[in-house]
Amino acid sequence: MKRIITLAALACLAVSSYAQQALGPGTGIVSPEINPDHTVTFRYFGPKAIKVQVTGDFLPTRAVEYEVEGHKLTFDAPGVADLKEGPKGIWEYTTAPLTGELYSYSFLVDGVRTMDPSNIYQNRDIATWTNIFLLSANEGDPGWYYSVHDVPHGSVTHQWYDSPSLGKQRRLTVYTPAGYENSKARYPVLYLLHGSGGDEEAWSDLGRTAQIMDNLIAEGKAEPMIVVMPNGVWFNQAAPGEAVNMFQPTMQNSRSQSTAEIEESFPDVMSFIENNYRVAKGYANTAVAGLSMGGRQSCMLSLSYPKKFGYVGLFSGVAVPDGNEAAFDAVFAAHPKLYWIGCGKSDGIMVNSRKLKEWCDSRGYPVTLYESDGGHIWRNWRTYLTLFAQQLFK
Amino acid sequence: MKRIITLAALACLAVSSYAQQALGPGTGIVSPEINPDHTVTFRYFGPKAIKVQVTGDFLPTRAVEYEVEGHKLTFDAPGVADLKEGPKGIWEYTTAPLTGELYSYSFLVDGVRTMDPSNIYQNRDIATWTNIFLLSANEGDPGWYYSVHDVPHGSVTHQWYDSPSLGKQRRLTVYTPAGYENSKARYPVLYLLHGSGGDEEAWSDLGRTAQIMDNLIAEGKAEPMIVVMPNGVWFNQAAPGEAVNMFQPTMQNSRSQSTAEIEESFPDVMSFIENNYRVAKGYANTAVAGLSMGGRQSCMLSLSYPKKFGYVGLFSGVAVPDGNEAAFDAVFAAHPKLYWIGCGKSDGIMVNSRKLKEWCDSRGYPVTLYESDGGHIWRNWRTYLTLFAQQLFK
Repeated sequence: MKRIITLAALACLAVSSYAQQALGPGTGIVSPEINPDHTVTFRYFGPKAIKVQVTGDFLPTRAVEYEVEGHKLTFDAPGVADLKEGPKGIWEYTTAPLTGELYSYSFLVDGVRTMDPSNIYQNRDIATWTNIFLLSANEGDPGWYYSVHDVPHGSVTHQWYDSPSLGKQRRLTVYTPAGYENSKARYPVLYLLHGSGGDEEAWSDLGRTAQIMDNLIAEGKAEPMIVVMPNGVWFNQAAPGEAVNMFQPTMQNSRSQSTAEIEESFPDVMSFIENNYRVAKGYANTAVAGLSMGGRQSCMLSLSYPKKFGYVGLFSGVAVPDGNEAAFDAVFAAHPKLYWIGCGKSDGIMVNSRKLKEWCDSRGYPVTLYESDGGHIWRNWRTYLTLFAQQLFK
Repeated sequence: MKRIITLAALACLAVSSYAQQALGPGTGIVSPEINPDHTVTFRYFGPKAIKVQVTGDFLPTRAVEYEVEGHKLTFDAPGVADLKEGPKGIWEYTTAPLTGELYSYSFLVDGVRTMDPSNIYQNRDIATWTNIFLLSANEGDPGWYYSVHDVPHGSVTHQWYDSPSLGKQRRLTVYTPAGYENSKARYPVLYLLHGSGGDEEAWSDLGRTAQIMDNLIAEGKAEPMIVVMPNGVWFNQAAPGEAVNMFQPTMQNSRSQSTAEIEESFPDVMSFIENNYRVAKGYANTAVAGLSMGGRQSCMLSLSYPKKFGYVGLFSGVAVPDGNEAAFDAVFAAHPKLYWIGCGKSDGIMVNSRKLKEWCDSRGYPVTLYESDGGHIWRNWRTYLTLFAQQLFK
């Protein structure tokens, strides 16, 4: 019997191996290779290539200036490094030692952007796929928080809710902390909003929300909480592949979006969560935060519902005080536990982040502005979530 | 105020648009384009390319012979078609009219396999990424069942369970049908196992399980049920990116796997589900099915626990009767409600699928063998799930 089962097993394997070989390149090259000294080696098999480069966020950035309506803004473009051709057509490049982070990169082969065929790890940001790798160098490094450790793990659920105010079913993602299922306790809620062109999978995939929360909670640095990640593009239902139409997401999609629809429809999200989860309700148990467009939405939500959110996090996205003074006065009259702004020093949004901070200072409203290096990038948003989550519900 | 908010919004958009442009090619080309007559047009911008081809499962397959331990087997390799160069370096190919299906493809540019830069829809099968598109031509087509329709949607949860017999935490995926959250009812359970090299995301991503179940249940063709998709590679914890180590999945990974570990540890999965979900327990409410390696595992699970699974589905993977006669006798002594084998006519596993069917026939054991076209491919496994799920718990 054993032999015959083995044969059947082998046949299964052989067929599928073949299928895999027929589809994939199967070069046998290891790339990226994380070396013991935390340098990272990239390899590419390109015997016919003339020039092979890697572009990624672990290389020194190039500051690129651009203008929006007369405002001069700066964007940090990822750096570029050349791979060197070695024996057998294998190109190679090794970085300087890196700190623990989740890094993104692509290859440029004779100028054409291509994925690393040796690395299955990749992420989609709006309409762009890039390869990623996770370096968990030292405990406490950002990369350490984004990695999976042997700690109690929460659950991540993708589900649908009815939005009467938008007239459709919509999809959202919910993180519940370890132990939620076997407890009778009620948990505070963080509503966490993505940026323009994103969807309800952005924070769980690109943002590593589950890993950050698992690790912070296991270390006792964050309170166990429910994290709700809705879809913030009001005319979409769900992420690509999960929606009725097969759309191609773009930034332009969101351009016609006013924040009004999110403000008006947000109670649909909150009542779904409050009716379906064991939620500790109320101001002191409810937080809202978001990145870029979602930061602006979070700000507008705090202005629209000044007594709803005891904690507000604006990551590289704000509304400015001008014309909103009375609404901001109402926000701070309720004495929020935390009004926290995070922004990169080379992010174009810094101008308005500082403007809001200065105005709040002038009124004596307690606002934290955390100025990080870098620009309008996920690397910063993961860090902001890690910092913000530790200050909630305490 | 409006103007200033708009400016802040524009700045958010501009920064991110730029970031996107810097990373992606932004060719503005539409590919694939699904035409009203259900032909599909592929486009690729390659002004310097000499030859551009598309390879996909919508093209006539090429039968490729290979041998495993003296057994001649045949694999259906995807077909290849040439794109034709048109103005401005844009290459184009249009298919014949296609039936509704979820199709996979890649480009071959001067012989090098590359993704379609205009299509963000892609799937990972073990270590290979391919582009996909979903054609929902007519109601009742396979592609119609894999599409999202405006019907009540179930939830998909990724969570962790403790496996004392494997000595580690492991991740699984659970589909609960629409209405589960707001009901007190108990639901029957289908345990659904992936193939060699796969993980707990294979059936939900490549298999479109949630969409198939949502649509079948909405039409009244399947009973509302819980579908549990565990990780069937006993020495892994979780899918790539969700595990403690950053591994590169391969078929070889599974080669050292005996089915014994899955049989021994499967009660850990079942008791987790029965303790955490409202499960209708017992033989008549419990099904197990799997593809390839998971088909063999399902068969072995039925042999190990003949009174556990009233419904058994073996998709392109079986154990043979030789040496297992007494165990198979015990399986059929319990009178399973359904013992169902699905296999492709050009799948190497067909030899053993027919062997099992014939042996069962000779003993008078009721077994269904569904022989489909094609080979050892996901397209068949999605169809088998669609057929199998309609026969459960009735």
